[in-house]
Amino acid sequence: MANSVDTLLIPGPIILSEAVQKALDVPSLGHTSPEFISVFQRVLQNTRTVFNSAATSKSQPFVLAGSGTLGWDLFASNFLLSGAPNRNVLVVSTGTFSDRFADCLRNYGAQVDVVGPTKIGESVPQELIAEKLVHKKYGAVTVTHVDTSTAVLSDLKAVSQLIKDISPETFFVVDAVCSIGCEEFKFDDWGVDFALTASQKAIGAPAGLSISLCSSRFMDYALNDRENGQVHGYFSSLRRWAPIMQGYEAGKGAYFATPPVQLINSLDVALREILDEGLTKRWDLHREMSDWFKDSLVNGLQLTSVSRYPSSMSAHGLTAVYVADPPSVIAFLKSHGVVIAGGIHKDIGPKYIRIGHMGVTACNKSLPYVKNCFDLIKLALQRKK
Amino acid sequence: MANSVDTLLIPGPIILSEAVQKALDVPSLGHTSPEFISVFQRVLQNTRTVFNSAATSKSQPFVLAGSGTLGWDLFASNFLLSGAPNRNVLVVSTGTFSDRFADCLRNYGAQVDVVGPTKIGESVPQELIAEKLVHKKYGAVTVTHVDTSTAVLSDLKAVSQLIKDISPETFFVVDAVCSIGCEEFKFDDWGVDFALTASQKAIGAPAGLSISLCSSRFMDYALNDRENGQVHGYFSSLRRWAPIMQGYEAGKGAYFATPPVQLINSLDVALREILDEGLTKRWDLHREMSDWFKDSLVNGLQLTSVSRYPSSMSAHGLTAVYVADPPSVIAFLKSHGVVIAGGIHKDIGPKYIRIGHMGVTACNKSLPYVKNCFDLIKLALQRKK
Repeated sequence: MANSVDTLLIPGPIILSEAVQKALDVPSLGHTSPEFISVFQRVLQNTRTVFNSAATSKSQPFVLAGSGTLGWDLFASNFLLSGAPNRNVLVVSTGTFSDRFADCLRNYGAQVDVVGPTKIGESVPQELIAEKLVHKKYGAVTVTHVDTSTAVLSDLKAVSQLIKDISPETFFVVDAVCSIGCEEFKFDDWGVDFALTASQKAIGAPAGLSISLCSSRFMDYALNDRENGQVHGYFSSLRRWAPIMQGYEAGKGAYFATPPVQLINSLDVALREILDEGLTKRWDLHREMSDWFKDSLVNGLQLTSVSRYPSSMSAHGLTAVYVADPPSVIAFLKSHGVVIAGGIHKDIGPKYIRIGHMGVTACNKSLPYVKNCFDLIKLALQRKK
Repeated sequence: MANSVDTLLIPGPIILSEAVQKALDVPSLGHTSPEFISVFQRVLQNTRTVFNSAATSKSQPFVLAGSGTLGWDLFASNFLLSGAPNRNVLVVSTGTFSDRFADCLRNYGAQVDVVGPTKIGESVPQELIAEKLVHKKYGAVTVTHVDTSTAVLSDLKAVSQLIKDISPETFFVVDAVCSIGCEEFKFDDWGVDFALTASQKAIGAPAGLSISLCSSRFMDYALNDRENGQVHGYFSSLRRWAPIMQGYEAGKGAYFATPPVQLINSLDVALREILDEGLTKRWDLHREMSDWFKDSLVNGLQLTSVSRYPSSMSAHGLTAVYVADPPSVIAFLKSHGVVIAGGIHKDIGPKYIRIGHMGVTACNKSLPYVKNCFDLIKLALQRKK
């Protein structure tokens, strides 16, 4: 049994709060027992709230055994139906994970155009997105809110406005894996049609859950098999899952696949911790920690942030910075019990490090983890001189 | 937080051993940390062993966030490639779960023939299967080792022999969800090409993991994109997962999707408990408990087993018996803190109850759960008279 005492500061999985971790250590529950139904009902309701969507919007949450990667399949397989009217997808790419979403979409038969930034570490200029939208009719536009490979934050509100102005029929799809819980997110206000995240990032739950929210507009499309055809996929079929999720939210057990009862019990605690503190407060706490950390690295140690800093293009749940010798910095921190991540972007991977500061690490001010991490990075760099 | 004190005797999720449950309550691990790699490496090796396959056979295990249902997709999407040479599948059906596997296969474009038993509760006569194999060339035959809807046990060895004799090119596919860990299972000896299970049944781990094993013959087919075409699916693509699983088994971290680190840590303990006791011993313990329970119900209380009893057609991890008024029996047991399940077969669903006796419930003789359950069923039935 692995029980590492290292301080985990990678951009997910993240350190859990004590209560979230304890909520895993429960006996198995029957998946249609009243006890589990009431937990799952609350989880579905709170998922909608954490995405900043009102129950009146009729948005549909999906909480499944899986991961962020499965969330791409959920959108792709339910958008690219056998009779899909428009298979063109514009992928707004700010890094590796945007490109993988494109890869997944192509796999299901999408015609994908990718629009990228002028420079790695920047978000994609609005005028480039607008130009694409003007010249071709896209069935969907995907934006990675925070690309975990570069720590670039995209301006969802601006893209939302472009879609509304130029091509309101286009589905607005957001990979919110590294954003829900740590970045301002407004599902309803921004007219998002499909947003996907995972349990092990800023939501602060254990890895193993794919968490998505669909607009009623996207549900109407995805469930319309007469007009839009069949789904390629079974486990990923929203048609199969919708009655299950609706059943549990209405307080009734239903079965398509056995839900991971312990993980969902733990997610329940994580979501309530976020909502008890308040979404806005939570975003503020992540912003404060992120600003302090980036400022210390950029201004204090004269490091260069991969995501442009200071600017509105930097994420608040993780930091990516160039260092001269990433493996030695990572190894030095590991030797002091702190685990951070290396770079993974295809063009700059070996040149930078990534540090996650999500969930309790950012929000519980009594935890010294990020401060200690900064001190260790400073030491590691001094040692090298 | 739900923390039911009921005794859970449904056919999965099952009661966990103390050590398996405790193994959930660990801090998040980095998914490419040496600590997690060594856990996952052992899990993959032990998975192969629990399916009774030797490392020398080059069979390939896959342990993913998901469920038994995802296992059907794993086979279907990687068998029904865009250029699949033979889309005919023979589904040997002994209940609801066999039929759902058929449903999943059709979803991916298979031409499915279903062959069923003469009577609900029996396995499918060998001569009916042989007749089908003689008259049509099938790309794959699927058998549900134990159909959890009826508690019918299929004779895999006999089907294996039929395939070898009549159509050795045909892939032999086994839904082993309710069998691995509690029924004799010989992946290599029986020439199984794809077997799928889930964590929450007789393996005795928490729900949330899809666990499969592929023969090297099936891997050769599935990975051959030049001849057999593309995969419909991304998260379910064995081509994407194979290098990841091979990496972890070789002691190297790799990434396609974030693995559920706590669940895998818990599965590690569950697999080791099985192997420490010994596979054969484990099967014997399940058989003993099952025989005692079925005998007590059938001979002691004059109830009729859904799966023919005594016969070789009855499963050893669960029992399905007809009772006059299932809801009242289920409610009576629930009022005494014991949770059992109702029937789910489309033709006889409202007429029977199902009781799971897998994992510690069957193997730890100091636990009185199944005995107590019998006493309560007896009381419930006496009360009704």
